[in-house]
Amino acid sequence: MIRITLIGSGNVAQHLIKAFTKSGLIEIAQVFSRNKETLAHLLDSDKIITDFSALIPTDLCIIAVSDNAISEVSKQLPFQNQLVVHTSGAAPLDVLDSKKNRKGVFYPLQTFSKNKEVDFSEIPFCLEAENHSDFVVLETVAKSISNAVFSITSEQRKALHVSAVFVNNFTNHLYLLGQQICEEHQVPFEILKPLIQETSEKIKTLNPAEAQTGPAKRNDSNTIDGHLKYLTNENQKNIYKILTQSIQNNGKEL
Amino acid sequence: MIRITLIGSGNVAQHLIKAFTKSGLIEIAQVFSRNKETLAHLLDSDKIITDFSALIPTDLCIIAVSDNAISEVSKQLPFQNQLVVHTSGAAPLDVLDSKKNRKGVFYPLQTFSKNKEVDFSEIPFCLEAENHSDFVVLETVAKSISNAVFSITSEQRKALHVSAVFVNNFTNHLYLLGQQICEEHQVPFEILKPLIQETSEKIKTLNPAEAQTGPAKRNDSNTIDGHLKYLTNENQKNIYKILTQSIQNNGKEL
Repeated sequence: MIRITLIGSGNVAQHLIKAFTKSGLIEIAQVFSRNKETLAHLLDSDKIITDFSALIPTDLCIIAVSDNAISEVSKQLPFQNQLVVHTSGAAPLDVLDSKKNRKGVFYPLQTFSKNKEVDFSEIPFCLEAENHSDFVVLETVAKSISNAVFSITSEQRKALHVSAVFVNNFTNHLYLLGQQICEEHQVPFEILKPLIQETSEKIKTLNPAEAQTGPAKRNDSNTIDGHLKYLTNENQKNIYKILTQSIQNNGKEL
Repeated sequence: MIRITLIGSGNVAQHLIKAFTKSGLIEIAQVFSRNKETLAHLLDSDKIITDFSALIPTDLCIIAVSDNAISEVSKQLPFQNQLVVHTSGAAPLDVLDSKKNRKGVFYPLQTFSKNKEVDFSEIPFCLEAENHSDFVVLETVAKSISNAVFSITSEQRKALHVSAVFVNNFTNHLYLLGQQICEEHQVPFEILKPLIQETSEKIKTLNPAEAQTGPAKRNDSNTIDGHLKYLTNENQKNIYKILTQSIQNNGKEL
């Protein structure tokens, strides 16, 4: 049994608590939350700590707080020479205070929503540690809840994080723009949902270059001109132009 | 049994042939293809017609050819006073020759790839006809292969088509950009695939505004600046800036 401590009560922390509880291989010793109530539905009250000084050393301390709070939280830990990791895709390893504890990263590459369950078994965990034995601890903990565990450097993690903004945050925004266009013309956005599913489904078996279709790919300038005339919102028009050009150049710089 | 004629041998035509053959409610009387070989694996040879003058009237003639060929094909049909439809999202109803036959649209809103099977039962069919009895024929044919059948005007269909470019073609291009960023930094793109699936999965239960996450949504300017510095390709940088701004303005014009 590996004993762990969690710092945080947000989406990532809550999803991790549920996953570790189910795994049976991990014992959650303590969770730090500013407000006991936030986690009351997930943990026994005596495991929820609201004062940093009450935290005790365990095999692994996971800091799952917002990026700009990681550094400060790591400084407040009351113990020394322990393995302490953060869960951020954007923060480098050395945002963690290195005076007292050994550093690492335990980054689940997924988007977590409060009211939507996730299947951890397929979530990629990107791990980084300062030495091999610490890496083995992280690997054991990650493998207790996921089948997709990777060793990723801080530099590589940055590429994954930027790439995730494109395939997740920006993609979701394209859904919003699609919804706006439908609503402006009194068509139910629902009609597009099977297409949205198929677009992501294709990427399981085709690479994005093979899967590309549409007027930009076909250089169908009649359809492109027709669409640009049809769009009245300048923001939609601008995004349409820039992404059409980028498809025509295969994403390369001119 | 409704007897139909198909004109075309591309992706849409081939997927429709397979679906109608399975349905058991539709009899494919004839299919026009310039080259008999293209459809030899799907149909008896005597049903494949290579000469327009050999086409006979049936209950419904579906023209499934590229947008710029629809008009010309509709003029070459050797019969009169029949129901003739096209399958295009972008072409208006009246691209069909109206001198000889009655017009309609039979538009399956999905992306079809040659080597990927699709489940027609969930594909939305957007139908349009000039009179009620023709609409009923289209509806019967569409319902024989799909559970999602809609009456959509040419004007509404245009909105769906533009919107589909955003949620399908442009989304797929964001996958390409994500892949490029990974490859530039020697990280396997595979790691992002579960995130891609979850992004589209969320849209089944959350609307795009609720589902939006990431640095742009949080106005996290440190992360945004870090990402812009990290990106070296000017095209990626430009798209990052414009989509970040659009998220911050909720897709509205400034």
